[in-house]
Amino acid sequence: MSIQSFHPPVRTLMGPGPSDVDPRILEAMSRPTVGHLDPVFVGLMEEMKVLLRYAFRTENELTMPVSAPGSAGMEMCFVNLVEPGDKVIVCQNGVFGGRMKENVERAGGTAVMVEDDWGRAVDPEKVEAALKANPDARVLAFVHAETSTGAISDAKTLAELAHANDCLVIADTVTSLAGSPLLVDEWQLDAVYSGTQKCLSCVPGLSPVTFSKNAVDFITSRKTKVQSWFLDLNLVLGYWGGGVKRAYHHTAPINTLYALHEALVILQDEGIENSWARHQKNHLALRAGFEAMGLQFVVPEAERLPQLNAISIPEGVDEAAVRATLLNSFNLEIGAGLGAMAGKIWRVGLMGFASNQTNVLFCLGALDAVLSGMKAPIRSGVAVAAARAVYG
Amino acid sequence: MSIQSFHPPVRTLMGPGPSDVDPRILEAMSRPTVGHLDPVFVGLMEEMKVLLRYAFRTENELTMPVSAPGSAGMEMCFVNLVEPGDKVIVCQNGVFGGRMKENVERAGGTAVMVEDDWGRAVDPEKVEAALKANPDARVLAFVHAETSTGAISDAKTLAELAHANDCLVIADTVTSLAGSPLLVDEWQLDAVYSGTQKCLSCVPGLSPVTFSKNAVDFITSRKTKVQSWFLDLNLVLGYWGGGVKRAYHHTAPINTLYALHEALVILQDEGIENSWARHQKNHLALRAGFEAMGLQFVVPEAERLPQLNAISIPEGVDEAAVRATLLNSFNLEIGAGLGAMAGKIWRVGLMGFASNQTNVLFCLGALDAVLSGMKAPIRSGVAVAAARAVYG
Repeated sequence: MSIQSFHPPVRTLMGPGPSDVDPRILEAMSRPTVGHLDPVFVGLMEEMKVLLRYAFRTENELTMPVSAPGSAGMEMCFVNLVEPGDKVIVCQNGVFGGRMKENVERAGGTAVMVEDDWGRAVDPEKVEAALKANPDARVLAFVHAETSTGAISDAKTLAELAHANDCLVIADTVTSLAGSPLLVDEWQLDAVYSGTQKCLSCVPGLSPVTFSKNAVDFITSRKTKVQSWFLDLNLVLGYWGGGVKRAYHHTAPINTLYALHEALVILQDEGIENSWARHQKNHLALRAGFEAMGLQFVVPEAERLPQLNAISIPEGVDEAAVRATLLNSFNLEIGAGLGAMAGKIWRVGLMGFASNQTNVLFCLGALDAVLSGMKAPIRSGVAVAAARAVYG
Repeated sequence: MSIQSFHPPVRTLMGPGPSDVDPRILEAMSRPTVGHLDPVFVGLMEEMKVLLRYAFRTENELTMPVSAPGSAGMEMCFVNLVEPGDKVIVCQNGVFGGRMKENVERAGGTAVMVEDDWGRAVDPEKVEAALKANPDARVLAFVHAETSTGAISDAKTLAELAHANDCLVIADTVTSLAGSPLLVDEWQLDAVYSGTQKCLSCVPGLSPVTFSKNAVDFITSRKTKVQSWFLDLNLVLGYWGGGVKRAYHHTAPINTLYALHEALVILQDEGIENSWARHQKNHLALRAGFEAMGLQFVVPEAERLPQLNAISIPEGVDEAAVRATLLNSFNLEIGAGLGAMAGKIWRVGLMGFASNQTNVLFCLGALDAVLSGMKAPIRSGVAVAAARAVYG
């Protein structure tokens, strides 16, 4: 056996995440490792909390990154907020609502599903009806930005409905954080988890989370122990909770935290409203290009995420062959459909550092070339100019 | 608010982990991110499994890194192998046995504790007695190398006793992997977890695990669902299990996996027996220095881990002040005691890349200088030469 060092190709990442990582972040991650109890690292943890509060638009004391991917952030929210026997209303309009159901059931709860078409926002009227029909529900859970379809839901309205019915709110913001307006305090979201590899354009592996005072009050007065030792916030609080003396819980992924810190400094320096506006601007340019080619969006305009553009595969096109050619001949990754959308859509991400003019024009040019080469039913040779015109 | 980029000092890490990271590994981690479904990344995953099998000395098909720290690796072993109502015999001779008990109970099992003094190996006679007294026990769990005390236990004998009583074996090898002989197949360990930030001298954040066929057979025929979605091996198998078509489970921490791959290539190139021998050689040199100074080891010689040297604090010495001076004036981190050992011992790690002559001599010289300066009851000025003599 003799395996060599791994030298990856340089891809342009325009799928559903990971997105292109800012070189500043890759460099930050390779700085020398310090101990996880070193005072300089504790200082970094304190700054991280401040920066994450900025990104989430919250004053929540309990705001931190979970030392594992977004799926673990999701699980942290559910295992801490759901006790055996609890009823949870779960909105499903894509893959990730189904995963929430799994989490509720594995925590011993009962999930009441509110189903919407994939590719559409969650319908507040259905949620209101479910809340009325289930006055004993304790939690409402929904996905703010569905990564599997590119639809954004009205988190503010959903949270209002939940609170009017004495429910806590769990929101998945994996794809919205830093890409679309997300106002945790103003909207009164109680337990929120996200990811690092989307609009923060950081490496994958961490899950930023934030919990309201009401959520923390519930967690610290639970009747039963949280089933996960690793994700029990009563223990994690002693590690991330602040104060000089920290209780050892686990060894933090130090260098990945360097990367997230750098990503958040970049966000702070740009300004979060500017980041939202940039995502919107590049989306409009990409949209102009797609429309010029004759490609159709899956999601109605009012419910469309700027950072994740789901388009229908043109008739007769071998979608996997297109993605393979883009990857192999252009070093360009776009995403396939997931779950019920597999084989039907492409997902083109414009997330974080990847949300820029170069990527928009490069992607349109590459897709135009590949589809034209396959004699797909598109208008060729017009997309790049149409998109470029949007930038003025 | 304006927070700046984080530039850590360059420390020498000789605590209980993280240990010094090889610069090759830091560089590897900063290579360009690719997608987690990219064929080149799938190739890396396949190589990773081969390299981990080499490190664990196993042919186990299910051998992979968990996308989270060692604590999550521990939890993966327990939540998959323990069903509600199961009885588990847990050996405790330090902090981590107590954490195992927590894991058993949160998975709905009953833990039968076998207690040994902290700083001593697990006593096989006590384990045999516990197995006889509990013929309905399904699992035996122990820590191979106790990071909190520096004691190594006889994993082979403990596993034999377990199998003679029809128990599966869960072994914590966080600190032993690559530092001390660990022969997963020969010793018939069924579920084994480790960490990356110890003797692999990689960054923290991943937990290599391996499962025997018997463990996998149990997991795939459980009567109840695994309580954790993120750690359910029945799902993770679809992602890491091999084959061309992978089921999406979560987004792997891609760049951290680059780092682990590089760490394992380094181990492969050195040869694992050479790595074990290097850890032993540097331990002997450090020991010669400590003995020359008059410092006492906590653990009896036959039960001592070469990679984690626990020594008693000399009388009258303010141990926290010593560590603070080493950190602030020497950029040298050594570890404090944990749990019942807090305030009583120091833990000096010689792990992976950090297990080298320079670190041994630097640490001894620094400790000599600081303790002499405090007029501690040690023999001064002899430790470095005594250690150097061991290298010949």
